[in-house]
Amino acid sequence: MISCFHSARFARIGSALAVVLVLIAPAAAEAPRDSAEVENFLLDNGMEVVVIPDHRAPIVTHMVWYKTGSADEPPGKSGIAHFFEHLMFKGTKAHKAGEFGARIAEIGGSENAFTSYDYTAYFQTVTPDALETMMAFEADRMRGLILTDEVIGPERDVILEERRSRIENSPDALLSEEVDATLYQNHPYRVPVIGWMHEMEQLNRTDAVAFYDRYYAPNNAVLVVAGDTDVETVRKLAEKTYGKVPRGPDLPPRVRPQEPEQNTKRTVTLTDPRVSVPSFQKSWVVPSYNHSEPGEAEALDLLSEILGGGTRSRIYQQLVVKQGIASTAGASYQGTSFDPSSFTIYGAPRGEAGLESVEEAIDTEIRGLIKDGVTETELEKAKNRFVRSMIFARDSQSGMANIYGSTLATGGTVEDIQKWPDRIKAVTAKQVQDVAAKYLNPDHSVAGYLLPTAEAKK
Amino acid sequence: MISCFHSARFARIGSALAVVLVLIAPAAAEAPRDSAEVENFLLDNGMEVVVIPDHRAPIVTHMVWYKTGSADEPPGKSGIAHFFEHLMFKGTKAHKAGEFGARIAEIGGSENAFTSYDYTAYFQTVTPDALETMMAFEADRMRGLILTDEVIGPERDVILEERRSRIENSPDALLSEEVDATLYQNHPYRVPVIGWMHEMEQLNRTDAVAFYDRYYAPNNAVLVVAGDTDVETVRKLAEKTYGKVPRGPDLPPRVRPQEPEQNTKRTVTLTDPRVSVPSFQKSWVVPSYNHSEPGEAEALDLLSEILGGGTRSRIYQQLVVKQGIASTAGASYQGTSFDPSSFTIYGAPRGEAGLESVEEAIDTEIRGLIKDGVTETELEKAKNRFVRSMIFARDSQSGMANIYGSTLATGGTVEDIQKWPDRIKAVTAKQVQDVAAKYLNPDHSVAGYLLPTAEAKK
Repeated sequence: MISCFHSARFARIGSALAVVLVLIAPAAAEAPRDSAEVENFLLDNGMEVVVIPDHRAPIVTHMVWYKTGSADEPPGKSGIAHFFEHLMFKGTKAHKAGEFGARIAEIGGSENAFTSYDYTAYFQTVTPDALETMMAFEADRMRGLILTDEVIGPERDVILEERRSRIENSPDALLSEEVDATLYQNHPYRVPVIGWMHEMEQLNRTDAVAFYDRYYAPNNAVLVVAGDTDVETVRKLAEKTYGKVPRGPDLPPRVRPQEPEQNTKRTVTLTDPRVSVPSFQKSWVVPSYNHSEPGEAEALDLLSEILGGGTRSRIYQQLVVKQGIASTAGASYQGTSFDPSSFTIYGAPRGEAGLESVEEAIDTEIRGLIKDGVTETELEKAKNRFVRSMIFARDSQSGMANIYGSTLATGGTVEDIQKWPDRIKAVTAKQVQDVAAKYLNPDHSVAGYLLPTAEAKK
Repeated sequence: MISCFHSARFARIGSALAVVLVLIAPAAAEAPRDSAEVENFLLDNGMEVVVIPDHRAPIVTHMVWYKTGSADEPPGKSGIAHFFEHLMFKGTKAHKAGEFGARIAEIGGSENAFTSYDYTAYFQTVTPDALETMMAFEADRMRGLILTDEVIGPERDVILEERRSRIENSPDALLSEEVDATLYQNHPYRVPVIGWMHEMEQLNRTDAVAFYDRYYAPNNAVLVVAGDTDVETVRKLAEKTYGKVPRGPDLPPRVRPQEPEQNTKRTVTLTDPRVSVPSFQKSWVVPSYNHSEPGEAEALDLLSEILGGGTRSRIYQQLVVKQGIASTAGASYQGTSFDPSSFTIYGAPRGEAGLESVEEAIDTEIRGLIKDGVTETELEKAKNRFVRSMIFARDSQSGMANIYGSTLATGGTVEDIQKWPDRIKAVTAKQVQDVAAKYLNPDHSVAGYLLPTAEAKK
């Protein structure tokens, strides 16, 4: 339920601007300093609004989150969600392409956008007096884009080039794509956020207009404003801008094809001359917060932290520090997805060590944890690290905005966020052991191996 | 283009009746004895009709092929095509459930139905005087089914039980499913014809009615009549029966999501206590007749024959006869699919031999063929074996009906079938070597391993 911008789940970002998102830990969510003031409400047209006052600096973060991402794309149209993110920077009936960005630059603000499996978001960081202008521009492009072939064609070339540079040029990214396509046998998380090249090449005006008309509407969006403002100001400005945008079609429940039972152990190997350092990852499909049995997602978060969250984790300590066979090793859990998602462990060998020894050492740690559980001490420490990461996150205005936006865009509530620290604190050692035993079944895992060509020939 | 009823591609069969389909070789298609007489035409409502006269015995095979199969199902509704095949045996406004079958039994005929990725077909074998009755019943259920919850519910229990007995009870079938889900990263051939259990459980009346209304119509069907009849009789009867069924909606072109480039080598391992004999398979995505460069599908057919078609093939001779390390070994090519499909090699070890030695021996055969090509002699022999299989097939009335029906239901024409032998004869040794080199890339393969639990623990 808490936003975790992990590369595997998060194919960002349309515009040519730099990524200004703060990467936050897979946690972060104790209420901000003035948590009592976080308020949310609905506009008459169905748009959800969250206000997170933060008066430490004269800045506001203004975000609009659309509850649509790549996993909502029609089959065969992969990439349209991310393509659309690009198209949102084109001209509208009221403003020429580039006008919005120029205005932001003029007032010394910054902006960006990103697309994930489950949502697409647009944001600006500006001084509070510019908030109304941002809202007006953002509300304008919610329905006002001019989508001609002349706009679509050149921008399609941009996303194709983006795929070439981000994916085709990166053995690591290519492997990740095919690991996901193997891990998910049925769910659209199988398909890369950026899209498959051959499908991106075919995306056209009809696809773009259909996607826009279906998903870009106030009743499918969440407005998050964090910063030096207050709820009444935001309400007034939102009604004046977004409130004028007519409600869109009522969308059916967001039900995607779910995973069947997993019965097999799978491997995916990419051998590529461009690889200099081999690496290894192993993933499982596990519940996300949105779908877990009570407490399981929280336990998976802590399992990930204990097993492989940072340099104090079991895997890091054992492989990198004690055995010295790995240059890096860790774990990650994508608990914030709308649908069941992945738990991943990874490592890269160091020196003479091979991938097999890294994998075996990681497997040994998992088996040990399943057999003997975790200690109260390490559980407490893991919980404390989570609390610290929250404190860090609440220091970041955009971090807080991200947490609220991503949670609300993936089926969660403000209350979920505010109660999350207590739910984490309530997790027992037994629960952590239980989710490890239940989900990290070695016979149902998907392993990815990235190998340099020479090593493969040995 | 020629029907190949291979288990991996062909999850048959609704009704509780015995399978009466003749299994024909991946070939079979020289014109029947009286090939000049094969005729095809369209009814006014768009239904395609093929008549294959065969007067050797007083029997007719009457088939209706719908151009819809599991790969046409909406995402999340897997199994609906096959479920619908079952529902077609229920009552209509004109006839109670079971009446059609009782009539066939009464006159000593037989009937059945089957569902594949690309089509669903219904057929009866009867004496010629019963042809009109068959057509009348079949035309009646094309649009006349009564689909109430009372009909749907119990039949859903039947398909769930069918999945339990055919798939869940069979480690081999479970492995095949996950190999397909791994091999196809994007195409719906990834999804089992029978459906994923969790999706089958949710199929309901709304899904059934939507599927029926979309796909069951004369303009999405092919009528094939083979046997002791003639084109004018069939035309007259077809107009009198099927001709009365109103045309259905015009369907958009049958475009499914296609595969991205494959970059990785993948493995899928099922370890199961029920396995007594381990086995191995390796697959690649390759073009089908419907999508290949000129001559490539024909070359792949001959490659499959030379490499692993029967006891004279290279793999069989080497692994089973000479080295004695395998109890069985061979190859298959699913060239008749509507979309690009799979080329598979397989083997099971004998005695003390392990799966690794079987895999290595097969890989050696493939590498050798890619390096040195095939001899003119073995190419000629393979072509001759194909011709013999055609002669065998044309001796089977239902075999011929299957060839024409499956070809027309997957984008081919009568001319394709009639010219196919010449196209096979034109394939050169170089072409066979080329398709092996082009498609059987060991770094882009998907291997499946079926292991007994004990072996896995070693």
